[in-house]
Amino acid sequence: MASRIAFIGLGIMGGPMAGHLLAAGHSLIVHTRTQSRAADLLSRGAKWADSPAEAAKQADFVFICVPDTPDVQAVANAMLPAARAGQIIIDHSTISPSATQKMAKQFASRGAHWLDAPISGGDVGARNATLSIMVGGDEAAFKTAMPFLEKLGKTITWCGPSGSGQLTKLVNQILVSVTNLAACEALTFARAFGLEPQKTIAAVGGGAAGSWQLSNLGPKMLAGDFRPGFMIKLQQKDLRLALQACKERGIRLEALNLVHGLFDRALEEGRADEGTQALFAIVEKNAKS
Amino acid sequence: MASRIAFIGLGIMGGPMAGHLLAAGHSLIVHTRTQSRAADLLSRGAKWADSPAEAAKQADFVFICVPDTPDVQAVANAMLPAARAGQIIIDHSTISPSATQKMAKQFASRGAHWLDAPISGGDVGARNATLSIMVGGDEAAFKTAMPFLEKLGKTITWCGPSGSGQLTKLVNQILVSVTNLAACEALTFARAFGLEPQKTIAAVGGGAAGSWQLSNLGPKMLAGDFRPGFMIKLQQKDLRLALQACKERGIRLEALNLVHGLFDRALEEGRADEGTQALFAIVEKNAKS
Repeated sequence: MASRIAFIGLGIMGGPMAGHLLAAGHSLIVHTRTQSRAADLLSRGAKWADSPAEAAKQADFVFICVPDTPDVQAVANAMLPAARAGQIIIDHSTISPSATQKMAKQFASRGAHWLDAPISGGDVGARNATLSIMVGGDEAAFKTAMPFLEKLGKTITWCGPSGSGQLTKLVNQILVSVTNLAACEALTFARAFGLEPQKTIAAVGGGAAGSWQLSNLGPKMLAGDFRPGFMIKLQQKDLRLALQACKERGIRLEALNLVHGLFDRALEEGRADEGTQALFAIVEKNAKS
Repeated sequence: MASRIAFIGLGIMGGPMAGHLLAAGHSLIVHTRTQSRAADLLSRGAKWADSPAEAAKQADFVFICVPDTPDVQAVANAMLPAARAGQIIIDHSTISPSATQKMAKQFASRGAHWLDAPISGGDVGARNATLSIMVGGDEAAFKTAMPFLEKLGKTITWCGPSGSGQLTKLVNQILVSVTNLAACEALTFARAFGLEPQKTIAAVGGGAAGSWQLSNLGPKMLAGDFRPGFMIKLQQKDLRLALQACKERGIRLEALNLVHGLFDRALEEGRADEGTQALFAIVEKNAKS
């Protein structure tokens, strides 16, 4: 059955995702800050709305995919007055879990459901509809939204109550960044002693030392290939969210702090748009200073 | 062809390894600090030597598997006067790379070859002959020793000149311990926010966040199952070797320092004989202090 859908934020991720929902036969109304980004979808039958509020008020399902917490809050504030019972908002942005919980409460007071549904898998995952989607919020609303989410991703997990999707995404980012650091330090050690590091990865990567980061980013680190899979500036934004959440909860994670500081140096060196494997350049330089 | 082999150090690793060489039909002479540990091998036809020197002087191949650098140095000092051209020493202990290089030089001056050949895979790997063996030293000597090594392990890598086996083992231990720390911090975060951490591992462990440590030790961390796969006191010994090597080379690895400090706290708490996953208990407590 065709549903009335709004999609707000047509960036490198949101654009292809909105396209999948349109291709599934739904009635789609879109808004994004740079209208030219909507051109392809409009030519395929999507409608344009001049504001997030305008897009949302006509839709039963509102998808959001914008950069950061304040962006989502601006969209939410605009939409809230017109929110209504049964409406489901699905926020694919990676943002603050506690801000998410506040917005979810506001929408719940009007009978609407806010699902936090951050994604991983990059632009390739968005284009190929192979994203991982980590969802928090009302479970019945999640089930209602499931047929849409299945058009966007492959691994779709309901993680628990509101904020759980965001928190799970942050767990993912802690793992990704500290495991990345493990690979950086090990390869720095290997190079400092004149080992052939490709051979070293082959010798140890299949056992207890193995990780996705080592296998996939290690060879790029050694080759100095810092083209982005996932950009440092985005990684750092997510680590900032994780550290902020730690502060709110009164916990301290030392390796997370350490890797966040090292990525800060990468930003200072102008590496914001490089891939996260460029952390290796920082670690190797830092080791010798 | 049956060869004359000496095996020095019949501990939890060396015992079964010597047994495989005996079973392959070689003439085996053994020495170990606690003679009762040799009983099984002696009943199967091995001969006893009263000292490492006595064992080595009758053998073409001398295998060593003892705990730490000073233990190997004591064996080497005892053997050196009787070392002779063509003799091959294969040291399976995990010890200092620079001490290894010194001993290799001393034996080379007498025409003998010293191969550093540290192992990973634990007591199960020793019993089942599925160890990983990382070898450094003369490549021709490595090839000569290969038929014996194949009786002991599955993944056997020549890593480069003398010391390269030890260095590769230390690369492995840096990866293992910092990746372990990544899992500890991520699961600490997950538990602090009331996520269901088993579900979290399932949601994120298959992608860029994935590692052997997370998949294999994560569930044990959450269950509080700290029975040893690899004991903290052994992990810490290897990290100490890695830090010592860094110091000698003038490099500094911050995450390695951090995880070494956390394992120190585990030792202070009496967790020396627990498995490395007990790091989780330290990280979780530390996060809240």
